[in-house]
Amino acid sequence: MMSGQHWEKIAATKRAALLGNIPPEYRIPPNLLPSDVQLDVTTFPRESGWFSQRELDITESTATAIVRNIASRAWSSEEVTRAFSKRAAAAHQLTNCLSEIFFLEAIEQAKSLDERQRTTGKVVGPLHGLPISLKDNFNVVGKDSTVGFASLVDNPATYNSTLVEVLERAGAVRYCKTNVPTAMMIAESVNNVFGRTVNPLNRKLTSGGSSGGESALIAFGGSPLGVGTDIGGSLRIPAACTGIFTLRPSFGRFTTQRCRSGLAGQEAVLSVNGPMAKTLDDITLFAKTVVDSMPWLVDPKCLPIPWRSVESKKTLKIALMMDDGIVTPTPPVTRALKETAEKLRNAGHEIVDWNPRLHSKTVEFLAKMFVADGGKSVRALLEPTQEPFRPEMEMYQTATELGTYGMWQLQLDRSELQREFLDQWMSYEGLDALLCPTTPYASVEHGDFKYVGYTGVFNVVDYSAVSFPCGVFADKAQDQFSPDYAPLSEICRNVQSTYKADNVHGMPVSLQLVSKRLEEEKLLSMTATVLQAIHPSTLASLKSGLVSSIKGRL
Amino acid sequence: MMSGQHWEKIAATKRAALLGNIPPEYRIPPNLLPSDVQLDVTTFPRESGWFSQRELDITESTATAIVRNIASRAWSSEEVTRAFSKRAAAAHQLTNCLSEIFFLEAIEQAKSLDERQRTTGKVVGPLHGLPISLKDNFNVVGKDSTVGFASLVDNPATYNSTLVEVLERAGAVRYCKTNVPTAMMIAESVNNVFGRTVNPLNRKLTSGGSSGGESALIAFGGSPLGVGTDIGGSLRIPAACTGIFTLRPSFGRFTTQRCRSGLAGQEAVLSVNGPMAKTLDDITLFAKTVVDSMPWLVDPKCLPIPWRSVESKKTLKIALMMDDGIVTPTPPVTRALKETAEKLRNAGHEIVDWNPRLHSKTVEFLAKMFVADGGKSVRALLEPTQEPFRPEMEMYQTATELGTYGMWQLQLDRSELQREFLDQWMSYEGLDALLCPTTPYASVEHGDFKYVGYTGVFNVVDYSAVSFPCGVFADKAQDQFSPDYAPLSEICRNVQSTYKADNVHGMPVSLQLVSKRLEEEKLLSMTATVLQAIHPSTLASLKSGLVSSIKGRL
Repeated sequence: MMSGQHWEKIAATKRAALLGNIPPEYRIPPNLLPSDVQLDVTTFPRESGWFSQRELDITESTATAIVRNIASRAWSSEEVTRAFSKRAAAAHQLTNCLSEIFFLEAIEQAKSLDERQRTTGKVVGPLHGLPISLKDNFNVVGKDSTVGFASLVDNPATYNSTLVEVLERAGAVRYCKTNVPTAMMIAESVNNVFGRTVNPLNRKLTSGGSSGGESALIAFGGSPLGVGTDIGGSLRIPAACTGIFTLRPSFGRFTTQRCRSGLAGQEAVLSVNGPMAKTLDDITLFAKTVVDSMPWLVDPKCLPIPWRSVESKKTLKIALMMDDGIVTPTPPVTRALKETAEKLRNAGHEIVDWNPRLHSKTVEFLAKMFVADGGKSVRALLEPTQEPFRPEMEMYQTATELGTYGMWQLQLDRSELQREFLDQWMSYEGLDALLCPTTPYASVEHGDFKYVGYTGVFNVVDYSAVSFPCGVFADKAQDQFSPDYAPLSEICRNVQSTYKADNVHGMPVSLQLVSKRLEEEKLLSMTATVLQAIHPSTLASLKSGLVSSIKGRL
Repeated sequence: MMSGQHWEKIAATKRAALLGNIPPEYRIPPNLLPSDVQLDVTTFPRESGWFSQRELDITESTATAIVRNIASRAWSSEEVTRAFSKRAAAAHQLTNCLSEIFFLEAIEQAKSLDERQRTTGKVVGPLHGLPISLKDNFNVVGKDSTVGFASLVDNPATYNSTLVEVLERAGAVRYCKTNVPTAMMIAESVNNVFGRTVNPLNRKLTSGGSSGGESALIAFGGSPLGVGTDIGGSLRIPAACTGIFTLRPSFGRFTTQRCRSGLAGQEAVLSVNGPMAKTLDDITLFAKTVVDSMPWLVDPKCLPIPWRSVESKKTLKIALMMDDGIVTPTPPVTRALKETAEKLRNAGHEIVDWNPRLHSKTVEFLAKMFVADGGKSVRALLEPTQEPFRPEMEMYQTATELGTYGMWQLQLDRSELQREFLDQWMSYEGLDALLCPTTPYASVEHGDFKYVGYTGVFNVVDYSAVSFPCGVFADKAQDQFSPDYAPLSEICRNVQSTYKADNVHGMPVSLQLVSKRLEEEKLLSMTATVLQAIHPSTLASLKSGLVSSIKGRL
């Protein structure tokens, strides 16, 4: 652990080392570099001429297609890994999305997998040869997991996170780790070590947080499948900001063992790991692979629930929540909800209204729990290098210790909320899912992401939740601010004050589909049903995994 | 809640009211009352002549047989409920085992179930008509749940515990609640409100705690099936002290929702509910009934894991732990372990040695966690009536607040211990179960129960554990103190210093069979296999459910 040195020097050295880990052939030639005023950089791989057609074909394929092509030996893991390393390098140079780079080791790992396949005629597992990117807090032996703290620079992991080993046994190749906010406790991805990750669809906007390095990398095409974490929305917010898919599972399905945590030992609301990708099929591939590995035999917190096959229901009963009573979504999100609900009704699904009466108490609870230690966990990681609190972390700086007795009382309140929430859900007879915003935003300008209540409430009750791009795009012509807007709260006014239709024009809008606790299989199946209800041409584009190509059609 | 009054007055009034709730016909005629020096009172029902043959037949049947006889209408729920009410009343008068008595309401409930069965020709569920006793902390509308605090007297519950409703829907009749120690945090059942429960097999000895009202009641034959709770051994210790069966499930199988807790909101080690009965089949009946009710639809903390059928393995691989490296068991327990291991070997099972290297750290952790709030939870319940800390609760009186940050660090240590424990288990390839003492004692004199490490360790790792009478009985001829005894620790010396072969002569010895987390079905099946390996005549006696009859054969 770095201490006694000033944080700025440590951070500058680390950033330089990170760039230094990009092999020369993966550094964008200066003459091809987009200018800083080019906001959408997702066009770069196709328009720069720097990528071969084969590299584009590979990096614009889905994870599901890639593992199929490697299994059939149409592609080698080596060429796939090289292609993604190059595109990930470009993503980093254009969006600042990576925190650790180990492409050369990955290429060796890929070669060895290719060799094994040649020798045995078999793949080692369902992810054979597939490069998978990892959020910074996954431990990989010999690599840092700084989660944005200067004090954790040059403190390489001595063990792998259990999930890293699960993925390796399934055949995955690890090649990079991705940027996060300090302690992973900000809804944008910015910290004092690596700085800020930007959204490749519009670099003026955030790619969200805390898994915002992942979302930027994947939306750019630099990773076919990534793994993030979520304690208040950290998978779903970045997925929504960049128009990709994610699944926040209930705790106990995918192992979180031996990951670095921002608030280590905090258990009243549990952080979970989950996949991020451009298609729902890729999310399902990850989920099934991890559960099929029986992680409960290596992680005592994993539940011995095998991957369950579910029959997809033809008609779903879905509760719709247009707002949570605290913050009105910005106009593109409200329109997306309306249009999607209409498409679902047209497809024969039943839509009922969700009453958000428990959301306010639930969101308040979440905020209290994160700072229950009086910010000591964060302070302990800042102090060794005199690193300052970032302004976004003010609540950790000013918090006071709640004490154990106080924690116990708060936990009692939370359990009662969980009971009431399930009661309410069961009171809608036959309810399958809840449809609501993932965030109030399509995305938002850097520094302006202010509200995580739409995601955080489902962390408190530990429900399974998907964020999916719904095929609606922000449109400055349709999504002007309504003159009748009356703020629901102070935070509502704050959120609306930063909305500018021009700034988010063309951005994909995502929604959240939520299912009860430990219903991951059912939720993924229902999400597929919901996607089918969306207009077929939009669906085809979503399936192609190219958000930017959809955007181009606006 | 009672406050402003002195606790002794409140307690005396409550005790008088409790006795007053025994209908006159269930009060033991003074001329039949055993003298205070009669230690074994389990002989009373047969020898006093106060019970009819029919009442004896009913109350000496297993729960499984009773529900069968009610379903076939050989018996009515009313007569069964009356018989158990009478025998429970006797148990209370002889062992002080009850905390709430509502026999008359129960008889009305039973009549209504009989009527429903007559009308519909069907039973309402698998427990139709069966009286089930409940530990004091289960909430029943209109009844107190004092958990031994004067301040909670005359504070009747306004809702039922979820498990109470689950059992009611399955057809169970509720008729009494049973005594516990203060806050349910002492390994004997003694508190300032109701006083001390004694062991019906030997009233000089403890029936254990904290579910020691249940164990005394069941061992006396006053209940065919009871429900207790366990956070450090509170099901297993009293079951072992009285020679009955219990299952401590992993958290999430049987609902604990809306029960009164001694340390409300404490979640770092989770309390669970479980059945207590004279036969393993009755334990299985309860477990399957509760899980089949799908409690996860009403309790968000329950896991959607259906009751799984398991194939029983012919030969088991069992790790044997003769001592935990902290406390040597007393001689009868050590002999029971040796004899049982020998019987298992003879039956073809594989016995390997368990290395208790993680037990010491795990037990230390448990002790820290219980007092992490500096005893505030207990103090808050004592202060309103100026009730003093009992001497057994000294650790709560002298504790200091750990704080939230400290709790988080402790939780990190516990997670690491859980990981190491599973690692160790998996390192024994193909290991099925662990066999070890339930407690260092057969039972022990009041005030002398000093060590809960044998049970507590499995609360920390949340493994499923059965305590079962192994057919061995303490025998003063065989179980003299070994001259080579060298204490493993100060607490070991303390435990051994209270051992007196004469005092526990004839007491049944129980052992603990432990399986990994959430393996309840497999564990119950393995326990049946272990029982089969025990000598057939002993097994027949165990199956008859009459511990006292076994004891008579010594």
